[in-house]
Amino acid sequence: MRRLTVFNSVSLDGFFTDARGDMSFAKGDPHDAEWNAFVGGNASGDGTLLFGRKTYEMMASFWPTPMATQMKPDDAAGMNRMHKVVFSRSLHEATWNNTTLVTGDLAGAVRELKAAPGRGMVILGSGSIVAQLAQARLIDEYQFVVCPVVLGAGRTMFDGVTDRLPLRRLESRAFANGNVFLRYEPIA
Amino acid sequence: MRRLTVFNSVSLDGFFTDARGDMSFAKGDPHDAEWNAFVGGNASGDGTLLFGRKTYEMMASFWPTPMATQMKPDDAAGMNRMHKVVFSRSLHEATWNNTTLVTGDLAGAVRELKAAPGRGMVILGSGSIVAQLAQARLIDEYQFVVCPVVLGAGRTMFDGVTDRLPLRRLESRAFANGNVFLRYEPIA
Repeated sequence: MRRLTVFNSVSLDGFFTDARGDMSFAKGDPHDAEWNAFVGGNASGDGTLLFGRKTYEMMASFWPTPMATQMKPDDAAGMNRMHKVVFSRSLHEATWNNTTLVTGDLAGAVRELKAAPGRGMVILGSGSIVAQLAQARLIDEYQFVVCPVVLGAGRTMFDGVTDRLPLRRLESRAFANGNVFLRYEPIA
Repeated sequence: MRRLTVFNSVSLDGFFTDARGDMSFAKGDPHDAEWNAFVGGNASGDGTLLFGRKTYEMMASFWPTPMATQMKPDDAAGMNRMHKVVFSRSLHEATWNNTTLVTGDLAGAVRELKAAPGRGMVILGSGSIVAQLAQARLIDEYQFVVCPVVLGAGRTMFDGVTDRLPLRRLESRAFANGNVFLRYEPIA
């Protein structure tokens, strides 16, 4: 089975976007070499990225542009190269390079993806997707970067999860820029 | 100035109580000696505890009882002995030992308490109090125990905070029971 991981930055009050969908609170200090190495290591993977529509549209409107290549050449090349899956009932096509559009049953499609051969899969952003797959117990690992800021309002990625989800902590790593990386897996 | 600290356990999705006001998710493993020493050290302080009405009523209905003394003798003695302040517009009296009821302006009362001589003050629970005092920039330190569980719904202690609150991380400590203790102060 391919492993399905969620990777998201969260505020101290648990939000992965603010009330307007803004995720810019999650920027780390660009002069923190250890942090930059950590982020760069994540972006260089060659697994599959899974998105909901909102996060997909945000990413697809940036990474293929010349501005992205100029600002973050390595990340842009990786994001454009990696295989991507977007889950949406309203999109008719997905034009970003190497992207598959799935319009049908989310949990069923993810079960098929997990059973197929290949490398690991990572969900970025995509709160409604995370909530549905967490509830269906299809996520194998949760990775959070807890950022040193309170937002006051925003979206959690677990809205609609009706059963408590107990987790086992696998890793805790504090960065000099104030971020804390936490890694968990569900307790079966 | 007396230092005002918030100490709360939070779920991974940022809630300090679940949707029904239940905080039992925050229980640590009772066999984790390091965790027990940490909790015991916190409860043995002789500062002042600050509460909103809901948390006060929950605490006041338990700690003075024989059951509390039987279950947690040291914590009960400490909680009953410490000076406590409850902020409420609806309570008419506060009968728990060593408790002062404040019915007037919250921020003004806290400014007076901070200026008075004495030891540090700690807010437990009391989400609406934390939110108002965070917004008024009257809290000097935030201490969170991030528990390894997703609740799906609940209350954050920052509901109503309208301005982003950037923080500096002071400490990060991972316990064997899966809890992660994080300590922050506001960036002036």
